[in-house]
Amino acid sequence: MASTKKRLVIIGGVAAGMSAAAKARRSNPDLDITVFEKGEWISYSACGLPYLVGGLVEGPQRLVARTTDQFAQQGITVKLHHTATKIHPERHTITVVDGAAPDQPIEVPYDTLLIATGARPRRPNVAGLDLEGVFNLYVMTDALAMQAYISKHQPRHAVVVGGGYIGLEMAENLAHLGIKIHVVQRPPQLFSHIDKEIAEEVAKELERNNVDLSLSDSVLETCEGDHGRVSCAMTSQGRIQTDLLLLSTGIQPNVEVFAQAGGKLGETGAIAVDEYMRTNLEDVYAAGDCAEHLHRLTGKADWVPLGTTANKQGRIAGENIAGGKAAFKGILGTAITRVFNLGVGITGLNEAKAQAAGFDYTTAVIDSTDIAGYYPGAGPLRVKIIAERGSGRLLGGQVIGTGGVDKRTDVLATALHNEMNVEELSWLDLGYVPPYNSVWDPVHVAAQVVAKKV
Amino acid sequence: MASTKKRLVIIGGVAAGMSAAAKARRSNPDLDITVFEKGEWISYSACGLPYLVGGLVEGPQRLVARTTDQFAQQGITVKLHHTATKIHPERHTITVVDGAAPDQPIEVPYDTLLIATGARPRRPNVAGLDLEGVFNLYVMTDALAMQAYISKHQPRHAVVVGGGYIGLEMAENLAHLGIKIHVVQRPPQLFSHIDKEIAEEVAKELERNNVDLSLSDSVLETCEGDHGRVSCAMTSQGRIQTDLLLLSTGIQPNVEVFAQAGGKLGETGAIAVDEYMRTNLEDVYAAGDCAEHLHRLTGKADWVPLGTTANKQGRIAGENIAGGKAAFKGILGTAITRVFNLGVGITGLNEAKAQAAGFDYTTAVIDSTDIAGYYPGAGPLRVKIIAERGSGRLLGGQVIGTGGVDKRTDVLATALHNEMNVEELSWLDLGYVPPYNSVWDPVHVAAQVVAKKV
Repeated sequence: MASTKKRLVIIGGVAAGMSAAAKARRSNPDLDITVFEKGEWISYSACGLPYLVGGLVEGPQRLVARTTDQFAQQGITVKLHHTATKIHPERHTITVVDGAAPDQPIEVPYDTLLIATGARPRRPNVAGLDLEGVFNLYVMTDALAMQAYISKHQPRHAVVVGGGYIGLEMAENLAHLGIKIHVVQRPPQLFSHIDKEIAEEVAKELERNNVDLSLSDSVLETCEGDHGRVSCAMTSQGRIQTDLLLLSTGIQPNVEVFAQAGGKLGETGAIAVDEYMRTNLEDVYAAGDCAEHLHRLTGKADWVPLGTTANKQGRIAGENIAGGKAAFKGILGTAITRVFNLGVGITGLNEAKAQAAGFDYTTAVIDSTDIAGYYPGAGPLRVKIIAERGSGRLLGGQVIGTGGVDKRTDVLATALHNEMNVEELSWLDLGYVPPYNSVWDPVHVAAQVVAKKV
Repeated sequence: MASTKKRLVIIGGVAAGMSAAAKARRSNPDLDITVFEKGEWISYSACGLPYLVGGLVEGPQRLVARTTDQFAQQGITVKLHHTATKIHPERHTITVVDGAAPDQPIEVPYDTLLIATGARPRRPNVAGLDLEGVFNLYVMTDALAMQAYISKHQPRHAVVVGGGYIGLEMAENLAHLGIKIHVVQRPPQLFSHIDKEIAEEVAKELERNNVDLSLSDSVLETCEGDHGRVSCAMTSQGRIQTDLLLLSTGIQPNVEVFAQAGGKLGETGAIAVDEYMRTNLEDVYAAGDCAEHLHRLTGKADWVPLGTTANKQGRIAGENIAGGKAAFKGILGTAITRVFNLGVGITGLNEAKAQAAGFDYTTAVIDSTDIAGYYPGAGPLRVKIIAERGSGRLLGGQVIGTGGVDKRTDVLATALHNEMNVEELSWLDLGYVPPYNSVWDPVHVAAQVVAKKV
């Protein structure tokens, strides 16, 4: 006899998929939950991958939150090496291909389906990307392949194509391995999502750490060296000798299977979802990097694929699938990274986004210190605040410095969530003791300055 | 001819007084501003004093924000060694005694008067506190006297009476100088303003750092050794040999001169002020440690004397005296310190205060790590959240750990300011990258746990 339990099928077993599975299980012990993951790793911290390659994280298992066995103990079935190739919304089934038997696709019924297929690296239009020594870094196997290559070939030079989060986190980690780094990117500014006053400091930090940087440049083709390995990158500005090439020119959502089944994509190209993570297809949810993310400040769907959001959306989806009614609160666009000794954080809108959203805004940039200036170890901290003219509403904040960047970013994020205005922000009762702060936090000071201009 | 400028007279030149002077000057270039300071130091970070004694701050000048000369250049007259002994509200004058001519009090007229007299250490009822080697730490001269004593006599043992902020910050700093510390206090728990689950961890940290601790104990008398120097503390639990004794059993507001003039004190014993920092006396303002502080959560006047609040109240008073109309937003009771390797932060109400204010509340305590658990250097972090039953409103948070305590305290403070409920708090879009956080911040996790209980 067939089970009478409701069947939840999840496509994708990393952040959103496994968060949803775990939450659905906790909320509803009676669900029959099966996860199909095309790779061989599940429930791991993809954001930890650069540090795995850099050797700061001791091994891939350290990045795994829960194993297949642990999920099995919770009654969650995980099928590795299983790729979903088709959704049949009218029949409420999906077609799945087991990597071990690629010629025998199986059809799997669902009562509820969750699409958590994530994203994949965008492949730039460059000749010679199939050489050995050319890598992406998006999933665990990418990191392990790069580790194996580095260990075997001991590269001395690496070209990093694209100076976004992954590119610069990898620049730091590869440099720590003693590899000389050259970052090449087409845009004239690093970190396109932050503003110039902050991005310039990132470029200086790369320089201080002996990283070569070619802005407004692009890789045209690679050269093949011995044994089919990459040996150079030809860019519009010249030839760069290298033993390793990392492509980090952005990612795109995995939406094809969903779209082919009549699933609706949003303007961003990712899956359109409502606040409950429901798609336009009946009983089909989506969450994580493949889905859109409501932006609290613009009130519009955006696509800012991050692990934090994937976990939140997965949890929301899991709760709703299990019979609850949780609404995604939206994103603020909060993102933080570290580039060598500098933290770089943003939350809310940058100037370009504020402009695009039609806000009349003004800004302030202040330079201060992360802790009391007289306390040993105090380092420089820059805070930029963007506020709406007239109302004084906080629209965004950006922070860069050697310490305390995460704190100010999160305070600003919390303020943004609550639609604070900058005058109010300038009086917040924040913690102060010399090892941790000045009596006026740099956020206070930036808020005071911008408050005079709104 | 007498000046026709409006005369602002300020009694007290540390945090509130000098903040007010600076703000009033910026807002109104025509004010005639005179500050009377009874000591010889102005505009310094009193919170930095323990680190000055401990040698982490290189000299007293490093703690000074602005000197008398710098204020003079802004047209602010500072009179050191001048003590205000009387206020004559009906005549709009004060009596001031110059330390250099104590027999010739002078009468100084004001149009507006600001009381920024701060507080002073409470003197416990113990015999033998006039011995050499017995100290308080509240003003700069206290720190300098202690430094001189330590340098001259090289004490090997110190008894710290009172395990509050100053007591434990001094324990850390004296221990760094190689002095063996014994903390003695009457209450059974360190840090009376925080809850047991956090205070217990502070006690363990003292133990780990070889600090002796006698709780539920009190110093009854001291013994006199050679040359009139302290040589022991007799406590209710026994005799402790010592070369130095620090009294840190709390402070009380300096309100006598104000009260004798008919000034109204609040229930806390500090000066009653409205949101504009006005007292009941016409044209008389008060700010800082001598004044009360409206608590945002209870809606009542409280007395939580801290440098942050003194600076804010001073700034508010200065702006209003100069003709503006700024209202003090109130405190949240945010306070943070470091005890050896642990940060300890609180914001909002602790359980005792929540109970006293009549809230029906519940709590959650979670143990996590400050950054991603797999990242090198991750340390333990404990978060306690107090929330109102029913509404789920956040009432308070407490944080302790080796890192990231200031961040979580400030996020919770920002959330409290905005009257967030814990469900909403659990979804905040906070920054995440392994060197700075986990994908779910410990604040999220604590909020999730308490949200289930409200």
